[in-house]
Amino acid sequence: MLRTSALALAMLSASASAASTLPKNVIFFIGDGMGPAYTTAYRYYQADSEVGQVTPTVFDRLMLGSASTFPHDDTVVTDSAASATALATGVKSYNGAIGVDEHKQPLDSMLVEAKRLGWQTGIVSTSQVNHATPASFVAHAELRSQYDVIAEQYYSRRLQENQPLVDVILGGGQRYFPMQHDGLGQSMVAWGYQYTDSLAQLDSLTRTPAMGLFADKGLEYAIDSEHPHRLSAMVSTALRLFEGSKQPFFMLVEGSEIDWCGHGNDIACAMKEMDDFAKALEVAEAYAKRHGDTLVVFTADHSTGGLTLGSNGEYQWDAKVVKQVSASLPTIQKAILNQPAAEMAKTLTRYVEFAFTEPELARLASVNQDKEALYWALSEIISDRSYTGWTTSGHDAIDVPVGAMGPQSQRFVGHHDNIDLSKQLTEIIQAQR
Amino acid sequence: MLRTSALALAMLSASASAASTLPKNVIFFIGDGMGPAYTTAYRYYQADSEVGQVTPTVFDRLMLGSASTFPHDDTVVTDSAASATALATGVKSYNGAIGVDEHKQPLDSMLVEAKRLGWQTGIVSTSQVNHATPASFVAHAELRSQYDVIAEQYYSRRLQENQPLVDVILGGGQRYFPMQHDGLGQSMVAWGYQYTDSLAQLDSLTRTPAMGLFADKGLEYAIDSEHPHRLSAMVSTALRLFEGSKQPFFMLVEGSEIDWCGHGNDIACAMKEMDDFAKALEVAEAYAKRHGDTLVVFTADHSTGGLTLGSNGEYQWDAKVVKQVSASLPTIQKAILNQPAAEMAKTLTRYVEFAFTEPELARLASVNQDKEALYWALSEIISDRSYTGWTTSGHDAIDVPVGAMGPQSQRFVGHHDNIDLSKQLTEIIQAQR
Repeated sequence: MLRTSALALAMLSASASAASTLPKNVIFFIGDGMGPAYTTAYRYYQADSEVGQVTPTVFDRLMLGSASTFPHDDTVVTDSAASATALATGVKSYNGAIGVDEHKQPLDSMLVEAKRLGWQTGIVSTSQVNHATPASFVAHAELRSQYDVIAEQYYSRRLQENQPLVDVILGGGQRYFPMQHDGLGQSMVAWGYQYTDSLAQLDSLTRTPAMGLFADKGLEYAIDSEHPHRLSAMVSTALRLFEGSKQPFFMLVEGSEIDWCGHGNDIACAMKEMDDFAKALEVAEAYAKRHGDTLVVFTADHSTGGLTLGSNGEYQWDAKVVKQVSASLPTIQKAILNQPAAEMAKTLTRYVEFAFTEPELARLASVNQDKEALYWALSEIISDRSYTGWTTSGHDAIDVPVGAMGPQSQRFVGHHDNIDLSKQLTEIIQAQR
Repeated sequence: MLRTSALALAMLSASASAASTLPKNVIFFIGDGMGPAYTTAYRYYQADSEVGQVTPTVFDRLMLGSASTFPHDDTVVTDSAASATALATGVKSYNGAIGVDEHKQPLDSMLVEAKRLGWQTGIVSTSQVNHATPASFVAHAELRSQYDVIAEQYYSRRLQENQPLVDVILGGGQRYFPMQHDGLGQSMVAWGYQYTDSLAQLDSLTRTPAMGLFADKGLEYAIDSEHPHRLSAMVSTALRLFEGSKQPFFMLVEGSEIDWCGHGNDIACAMKEMDDFAKALEVAEAYAKRHGDTLVVFTADHSTGGLTLGSNGEYQWDAKVVKQVSASLPTIQKAILNQPAAEMAKTLTRYVEFAFTEPELARLASVNQDKEALYWALSEIISDRSYTGWTTSGHDAIDVPVGAMGPQSQRFVGHHDNIDLSKQLTEIIQAQR
């Protein structure tokens, strides 16, 4: 008889009783662009560089399976709109679709279903809150680029006249919610939303409905920000606002800019976004542990950039190099654009701890009057030094990780199509009826 | 109350009783180099190209989690020796190590442990059977390149004088087991091994110990072979040989050449190896379903080539292009090397269904006197056409898939380090004591 089988039985017995328990609350984390190379890289990035000091991340602790992400389109590579629509509504649609099906007919999301059943709801993202992923949980639009059409629905789309559709809205996008007279943001405040535009003033939000918009569009990259853990701070705030109520809550949390750094093939930027996303997930993990009544699920909508950890035939991926870069590539690019070679070398020391070689500096000097060429030269030098591989400035089709904890988490074991994750979550929410 | 909770409870109850049940047999599948981009690609490769006709693969059906693969070395990227040693023995070692620890001290594998407990044992691979992955389950060597030292242990290493360590040996490597007088192979036959060197004669193996070696070193690539499903045929044969006995069996099955195609950045070659590996896993899946007493586990030792499914900014991965290539790149390269341009174009039509463009043909003609340059030009053209991304001719560090079915399969849910997979399997084998 197996030494550990008593433990295994006890665990299964615990999860058997958990299987019949429904969560009070559901928190759904989406790492935009966070394919399996990102969660792997983050483990080695946050590990002590001594071999053997690798410790599991929150992604490792919650990991339960994988998900396929192909859209209903003439490609197996999804964009963030089609995948968000799949994850929010359980229906595959075309690339560009926000909460509508292939015939452009509106689809209701799990957030709408939760509100219909009297739950509190929240949207937290580092992008503008009306960007593709959060948008698909709230709005309908034929195209993701219809930002104003989408933003307007955050206010106008109400299931009951006196109830907002989204009780807590935290992220970026001030330009889409103007605060001047008759602006959308001003209308929302007049209607009853508490509002702040400062991450330092998150504490000023004390009740729902509440909205915090902290940038014109997306928030500043974590690596460039005074608030590198702005997503985790927003998640803590949302949980505090929900906690006072007896109603259950559904919250969508997006680590939006993992994807943006991936499009830019900017590994240091991506790892700092991963760090904030991991910290935010840890906040939810701690909440779920403390309360025992909350289902936390994480996945990604797709992977970005064709990121891999190994290049040019070398058996290496060097996280130390990545940690030596303390600004995003756009920030470094802006700082050295058009600088004379000697000055450029000096400027670089402000942002990068390693010493650039003469050939590297010569290469940068040769292109530093050309914004685009300079950008990709910086990306290639840092990627080559760290043995980081990229194959595209777009998305790729690789399956993404899925993890969960709390009541009903056993439903997320194994491989799923992205729409099945959505159906499971919707079924769990509806079961409380 | 949840509609599906009764079902979920029933399933958990079934697995709770399965938790105390031990498997009679254990089959461990290792896809060499089979990172998550390979299992993802294979799904779209074998799917009907019409969107919406994507069906789950055997990897999807068995999927339960992921594994990290970093070695005990000054890199997070493992080679196949260190990872095989980790998977076989539960101990991380240096790149190059075959069944020895960081101090070059011998380590016993789960196959040795199974034999010690009276099990039948088997090694099935498409590489030479003494290649790194199978070798680490049988032998000790300071370096993977010590092929003769390794091969010799397949015969000489016996726990009891009258008992072979490995009852069924199927794969490649005739050169390491010579059949002439006093050759290693001849000694094994004299000792009692039934032997064949022909895949067409697998039926001639009727009892254990049995050995089949079907190539000088590795077997011909599936894509070039008259026996594209040679791994699944070997697995069927091994199961037939084991089935007659009341003893339990442990079998290691390696899809060795997924890795080799990956090193060569040869996507069509890799997909045909995946197809054979999938078919072999399906043979085991059917066996396990039929008998109910067999644990089947699959994973990979690492990912190879930095494979991704998307390149050059396009949101696409085109399996159709991949399916239009009917030979490995080395075969195509050999056929067109030094051919005049017009002849070359004609030769290509024998191996590739799509029509090469004039610029592609001009490119090939310009390098077709240079074997290496010609190879990589072919790889790049097919990769670019199919939007397949590669970042290295070596390995990368991305976490690999883990799946299982049968008694004790619940132990493989979640994220694991590669040594923990090994410890779980060894514990399951030892528990039958």
